[in-house]
Amino acid sequence: MKLASLAHGRDGRLVVVSRDLTRATDAFIVVPTLQRALDDWQRYAPALEALAEQLEHGSVPSFRFHEHDCAAPLPRAFARLHAAAWPSHHRLLRQAEGAEAPALAEAPWRRAVSDGFLGPRAAIPADPAASLDLAAGLAVITDDVARGADAATALGAIRLVTLVGEVIRRDRLKPDGIDREGPLAAGFSASLGPVAVTPDELGEAWQDGMVRRPLCVTHNGTLLGRPDPGADLGTDFGALVAEAAQRQALGAGTIVSAGPVSNRGIDGGPGRPVAEGGAGYACLAEARAAESLTTGWARLPYLAPGDRLRLEVKDRAGHTVFGAIEHDVTG
Amino acid sequence: MKLASLAHGRDGRLVVVSRDLTRATDAFIVVPTLQRALDDWQRYAPALEALAEQLEHGSVPSFRFHEHDCAAPLPRAFARLHAAAWPSHHRLLRQAEGAEAPALAEAPWRRAVSDGFLGPRAAIPADPAASLDLAAGLAVITDDVARGADAATALGAIRLVTLVGEVIRRDRLKPDGIDREGPLAAGFSASLGPVAVTPDELGEAWQDGMVRRPLCVTHNGTLLGRPDPGADLGTDFGALVAEAAQRQALGAGTIVSAGPVSNRGIDGGPGRPVAEGGAGYACLAEARAAESLTTGWARLPYLAPGDRLRLEVKDRAGHTVFGAIEHDVTG
Repeated sequence: MKLASLAHGRDGRLVVVSRDLTRATDAFIVVPTLQRALDDWQRYAPALEALAEQLEHGSVPSFRFHEHDCAAPLPRAFARLHAAAWPSHHRLLRQAEGAEAPALAEAPWRRAVSDGFLGPRAAIPADPAASLDLAAGLAVITDDVARGADAATALGAIRLVTLVGEVIRRDRLKPDGIDREGPLAAGFSASLGPVAVTPDELGEAWQDGMVRRPLCVTHNGTLLGRPDPGADLGTDFGALVAEAAQRQALGAGTIVSAGPVSNRGIDGGPGRPVAEGGAGYACLAEARAAESLTTGWARLPYLAPGDRLRLEVKDRAGHTVFGAIEHDVTG
Repeated sequence: MKLASLAHGRDGRLVVVSRDLTRATDAFIVVPTLQRALDDWQRYAPALEALAEQLEHGSVPSFRFHEHDCAAPLPRAFARLHAAAWPSHHRLLRQAEGAEAPALAEAPWRRAVSDGFLGPRAAIPADPAASLDLAAGLAVITDDVARGADAATALGAIRLVTLVGEVIRRDRLKPDGIDREGPLAAGFSASLGPVAVTPDELGEAWQDGMVRRPLCVTHNGTLLGRPDPGADLGTDFGALVAEAAQRQALGAGTIVSAGPVSNRGIDGGPGRPVAEGGAGYACLAEARAAESLTTGWARLPYLAPGDRLRLEVKDRAGHTVFGAIEHDVTG
């Protein structure tokens, strides 16, 4: 099933969304918010699934679904743990700075902001003093996960999958993903996809704990990248959730996010731009690093007023899966 | 007024507690949980204050209040930002390791775990592989704070004050408070005082954004420390909340915590043990560092099965203010 939270109060108003994202029905008769549904998933999920079936058959009252009416599926979450799960991202950024490729034993983690997600169509205010970037990735929302759970158990505790867009101040982040100025400085806001989808609903687009369709990132109408999250992956979401739960239990509604998605080039080296037949990039920093390595000069600027970035995953038939995150940068 | 959450479900059951912590009355008729009270404080606080008055006068049904029935006042919170606000702590730890005193421009911050606080009487499982410590400090719970709010505004947005006890793996933390193994490794659980108190209720024990009574830390029945949070303070809570809100707005129910409390010695050097007339220490690591500097050898072991640590603040009349955090270490 597909779930969304319409913008309403601090926790949104939970709705069940049709597969094609055209219609929705209120979930209030079952449970008013997604956090409360996750707090007792075994109890609420069957009733929500039933609503989803009825919605497909047109046997419940429904209304037109508009992505721009959405808050994040969880407008605020009690925890978010973010990992850099695609090693070629940091490899490329470090290479562009003239440093060696990182010898990271595991994905760098951060405890990331989760108490106020941007809506999927929120405007991002430009900041002339900052090198603002948007890193496109994927996120899962978990049920309770016991401390020390193995990857298979962790994978089975994933309740929902969605997009994540992380607004990053690149001037405050080293190429290996470590903050220059402490953990509050670099990642100061993030958005989630308008719609969160259960793994079973994703079908063949979800295999081995990862979305298996390209993440399309459009920058001012031009395709910046369409990297495949299933390729060049360091760690899938089952293993990531298990890693996050290694030292503390995770509570229901924990978000484990990963990004930016990054593919290597065919030769195993840096990924190539879309214009050269490559998979392109899921953030501006990586596109700039590739430019810098190729031409000696990163021409692509960071986010500026008037820019628009769009993140979307489409299924084989070309239909949107999670809806789109689309941020306009305002002056 | 004084508020507590009795252990019940994921978010506890809000009760109003009498000034002397002997009786409580259910807040359910006003609002069922503390998070919901904070979500609309202007609406709920007056009714909760009225309940507190009635409780003092014996004009509402009440029951005996037991601290061991409590969960943390906020059993889970959407955000916690933790700062090391007493510079002498890190100075002493670094000195003991032979490093220079840190030249930190500001208090080191961490985005700390907040999605599942230990109850104030929870047992802590020992871990033979870990150097387990409990760092005693103070925490405030805020209302909404706009990004960029000044210290005075931030101070005015503090709704509640309580104790914090942070279970730390010292083997995973450098003396300057930076994680050796990434942000998930060192701070893996924390408890809050059984009772959270409004600043006005603290009276003269709250001045200039800080608790002005000693924080008594008892280790197996012996006083380890009674440092004064108002002395040798780097940054008060008004300034800390403002700093936390510098780069992102804070949502209602955000916890800003600070610790361990640490006082310098009379000579301005390392604090002295209680047995030598000093203020002692609010964590084992600092007591060990002082031993190490004095005798060349840290004899005090880290937490082991059978240990008991107790944190408490008493008012001038000797009455407990927030109740006590008391953790037994189990084998």
